[in-house]
Amino acid sequence: MTRTLYELQGQDDKRFSPFCWRTRMALAHKGLEATFEPVQFGQKNKIAFSDQKLVPVLCDGETVVTDSWAIACYLEDSYPDAASLFGGPVGQGLARHINFWVDMSVHPALARAIMADVHDNAVDAADQAYFRETRENRFGMTLEEFCTRSEADVSKLHNVLSPAIATLDAQPFLSGDAPAYADYILFGTVKWAAASTDRIVFPDDGPFGAWLVRMYDLFDGYARTSGAAAA
Amino acid sequence: MTRTLYELQGQDDKRFSPFCWRTRMALAHKGLEATFEPVQFGQKNKIAFSDQKLVPVLCDGETVVTDSWAIACYLEDSYPDAASLFGGPVGQGLARHINFWVDMSVHPALARAIMADVHDNAVDAADQAYFRETRENRFGMTLEEFCTRSEADVSKLHNVLSPAIATLDAQPFLSGDAPAYADYILFGTVKWAAASTDRIVFPDDGPFGAWLVRMYDLFDGYARTSGAAAA
Repeated sequence: MTRTLYELQGQDDKRFSPFCWRTRMALAHKGLEATFEPVQFGQKNKIAFSDQKLVPVLCDGETVVTDSWAIACYLEDSYPDAASLFGGPVGQGLARHINFWVDMSVHPALARAIMADVHDNAVDAADQAYFRETRENRFGMTLEEFCTRSEADVSKLHNVLSPAIATLDAQPFLSGDAPAYADYILFGTVKWAAASTDRIVFPDDGPFGAWLVRMYDLFDGYARTSGAAAA
Repeated sequence: MTRTLYELQGQDDKRFSPFCWRTRMALAHKGLEATFEPVQFGQKNKIAFSDQKLVPVLCDGETVVTDSWAIACYLEDSYPDAASLFGGPVGQGLARHINFWVDMSVHPALARAIMADVHDNAVDAADQAYFRETRENRFGMTLEEFCTRSEADVSKLHNVLSPAIATLDAQPFLSGDAPAYADYILFGTVKWAAASTDRIVFPDDGPFGAWLVRMYDLFDGYARTSGAAAA
């Protein structure tokens, strides 16, 4: 059976989408091989078969699944004998809250800190005009007005992250003693920043920094070496 | 075996501590009977035996446990045949993140919205001077300067809550299809507000309002009728 993940591609083949990284790590967690098919913003025709315009798209044999959360649930249901992503129904319910917390609280704070860098350093040159126009319409200002690369914006991000930092001070992973999907949700967001800027926007020391080392070490250093120059 | 929970007591016998409500609901979830021993701020001699000054304190036979999170973990370990509070290690790990998220993100936003009301309507008259002094020292301003009862502060609280609202739009409880300890963590905070103000500070409609009805309905309407006039 062929298994293909369509994922966002940027400059220098960087795979910088936080949502696609969630799926990458989920596949690695389950021990499932896949082919990774790059899609630039201007190449949405590649995923027209999925009847929507967003990556990731997983083709698992004949099955097409879109949306990173739906893909995680699909993998958990379809491969129950592989390592669990959720550890049961309560873990799955709470991972969904983490998913919304990262999307609705962490991402807005991170966007302020790095969106101009995403444009400059992660988005492929061919996509930059599209990226700038859509984001500036959304924010109602230029990317450079929205993201001034200030220390204050990094501090606000760390404030939003403070519950995760406290959790990681109390236990090795958000999911407890071992990593699971909730960890991959937040880690995907770290990879998004890592592909976009050399500035330290996520804490690289303390409990969060130690967690990052553990996350990069998983699956034989998978997140360091895969996804082209994404790190 | 005797089981006693020492919990904060306020005006009209209100039990208004969010942390004590976490333990109340955890005991109900486990189906464990307990005697509730009220403690006012000025009565910390009642819990001197616990070698610290904070409620809740659980005395389970000869065992003394302090701190609501530690009590939940103790109950889960000590009563494994009763309904699970966490649904396994991943659920326990992620509930800890919810615990920190409520303490570090929700509580600061809620405090801005209701702290003057807590003083006026929840704290017992005998404790009000102590409460005002300790909180005003912490905030660096008067309670009335800190909490102006503005709609803007309620909006900020709802913004912090937005991931939970989205989660509850997708599933009946934070913990999935059935309630577990993570739900009690957030619900305790709602009870704190309900004991302190008649203003609508938590959403009473939409997915959050529907969840509140479900939470109040649990255990034969336990949170409506117990804890004296706490609701």
